[in-house]
Amino acid sequence: MIVALAGGVGGAKLAAGLAAALPPEKLLIAVNAGDDFEHLGLTICPDLDTVTYTLAGLANRTQGWGIEGETWNFMAMLRDLGGEDWFNLGDRDMALHVLRTQLLKTETLSAVTARFTKRLGIRHRIVPVSDDPVRSIVETDEGELAFQDYFVRRRCEPRFLSIRYDGADAATPSGALAEALSNPALEAIIICPSNPILSIGPILAIPGIRRALDARRVPVVAVSPFIGGKAVKGPAAKIMNERGFEATPSAVIDHYAGLLDGLVIDHADAALPCAGAAILAHDTLMREAADRERLARITLDFARALGAR
Amino acid sequence: MIVALAGGVGGAKLAAGLAAALPPEKLLIAVNAGDDFEHLGLTICPDLDTVTYTLAGLANRTQGWGIEGETWNFMAMLRDLGGEDWFNLGDRDMALHVLRTQLLKTETLSAVTARFTKRLGIRHRIVPVSDDPVRSIVETDEGELAFQDYFVRRRCEPRFLSIRYDGADAATPSGALAEALSNPALEAIIICPSNPILSIGPILAIPGIRRALDARRVPVVAVSPFIGGKAVKGPAAKIMNERGFEATPSAVIDHYAGLLDGLVIDHADAALPCAGAAILAHDTLMREAADRERLARITLDFARALGAR
Repeated sequence: MIVALAGGVGGAKLAAGLAAALPPEKLLIAVNAGDDFEHLGLTICPDLDTVTYTLAGLANRTQGWGIEGETWNFMAMLRDLGGEDWFNLGDRDMALHVLRTQLLKTETLSAVTARFTKRLGIRHRIVPVSDDPVRSIVETDEGELAFQDYFVRRRCEPRFLSIRYDGADAATPSGALAEALSNPALEAIIICPSNPILSIGPILAIPGIRRALDARRVPVVAVSPFIGGKAVKGPAAKIMNERGFEATPSAVIDHYAGLLDGLVIDHADAALPCAGAAILAHDTLMREAADRERLARITLDFARALGAR
Repeated sequence: MIVALAGGVGGAKLAAGLAAALPPEKLLIAVNAGDDFEHLGLTICPDLDTVTYTLAGLANRTQGWGIEGETWNFMAMLRDLGGEDWFNLGDRDMALHVLRTQLLKTETLSAVTARFTKRLGIRHRIVPVSDDPVRSIVETDEGELAFQDYFVRRRCEPRFLSIRYDGADAATPSGALAEALSNPALEAIIICPSNPILSIGPILAIPGIRRALDARRVPVVAVSPFIGGKAVKGPAAKIMNERGFEATPSAVIDHYAGLLDGLVIDHADAALPCAGAAILAHDTLMREAADRERLARITLDFARALGAR
């Protein structure tokens, strides 16, 4: 049994690869909740939705979020009516936000997510890392910004100084994640190639998750989100740089401070000095479904080999 | 100054005619709130929206509700996700419901409506009859049904026994309506050709409105929603019949029990016996914008003539 910790786009791609490589009962995909937010009265969970749409085969193939073939008539009318329009919400996408917001009045986020994934034909389990609200707040040179204010409205332009994860201290792991982490059949924990600070940070800030990972009897293997000093997608490299790190494999190992047993890096970074975890170099760019599955299988084999040592 | 009391489709058409015939400062359109309801966590105000879309020139030209050229991708995805799909919500229409629901947390329905109508370029004033919730409940041979359950989900199929207007007793007229009804410049009150029981009933059930109408110094003139014993649109005739009334001008006068000074009826009904109010026969079917304005002008002239007596 494998637990995958995932953020947005890169995480969703590897999660899809793992789902292609493993039967449903052998995989739990636990998704960051730190970029969830309330907008227009709706609870929006961007990472959870990106993973869900990706596994359902609905994800937009170019923009990295939302639904392929989406329409934007809600947004056009919202703009006409003078509503806040800095966060794009597609017409189909809206159904998920509206229905989730309604169901959350009486159900946990885990239960709502299970309902949606089942309806969308996803056989693997996708859960939020916690059913308690965790909300990332970014300290910038222009002051504090709620995560999506920083990430979407301001396009990560303000200089990143630090981040805190409101609610994380009081949050407990979701039931399915807590159970999987203490399951004797657990073989490895995979940290997907998501932003270490923005996407994986809020997961590790939940004490029950961090404790379980520190006390692990199985390998933790991450896939680096960097290739040749750059992030494949998103602002991870910019933020690492603004925090005084380079976007390199060794910086990833340092950032995860003792948590990684293994790190999968791209061939492009294979010549860089790197210590503190076992290293496997491979192609980490996931263009097609076949790339995802190949990287997932390589990562699983690497993790199992580390576990057998 | 004219106050028009309006329900849905027929009411919206005459309201649009009155808006074409009168300058913005001379007309207040007060709209039924009894069919408002909460659905998917959203506050939906069908009559208010029909009047708004009609005056904005956005209304669907055939179906009598919603927006012309609307798309339905929200509904398709809602269905895929297993959400309640008996009430159709278009993609553009959704923007109004979502934004209204958000704004209602801090503003009155009157304020939200003023905001939307201004953004949509409507110069005339549209207000709900009350900022307090009024919710029609229909007693049927299958038990009590919330209004939209009866009207949309069950398509008015259960036999109509009676109706009550929850919240009406405690509701007060919206500020703009109360002011208009006591304004010395008020010349007449027009009851639009909306369903007397479902659309106008919940308006007259608000004590402050009923009192102001009973104490009026100006004529109340209604336009009959019936032509040749049938309703132009909707279930008004069926419901009148189920209550033991025929869909005739004299039944309308009886139903409004002493409230009408004048009634505009269709030529088709001109030969029917009718007493209790002054009668004007005219073409009441509003196919085109020109029909609406013509009927509005005839009705205004009739009301002013009654006021001059």
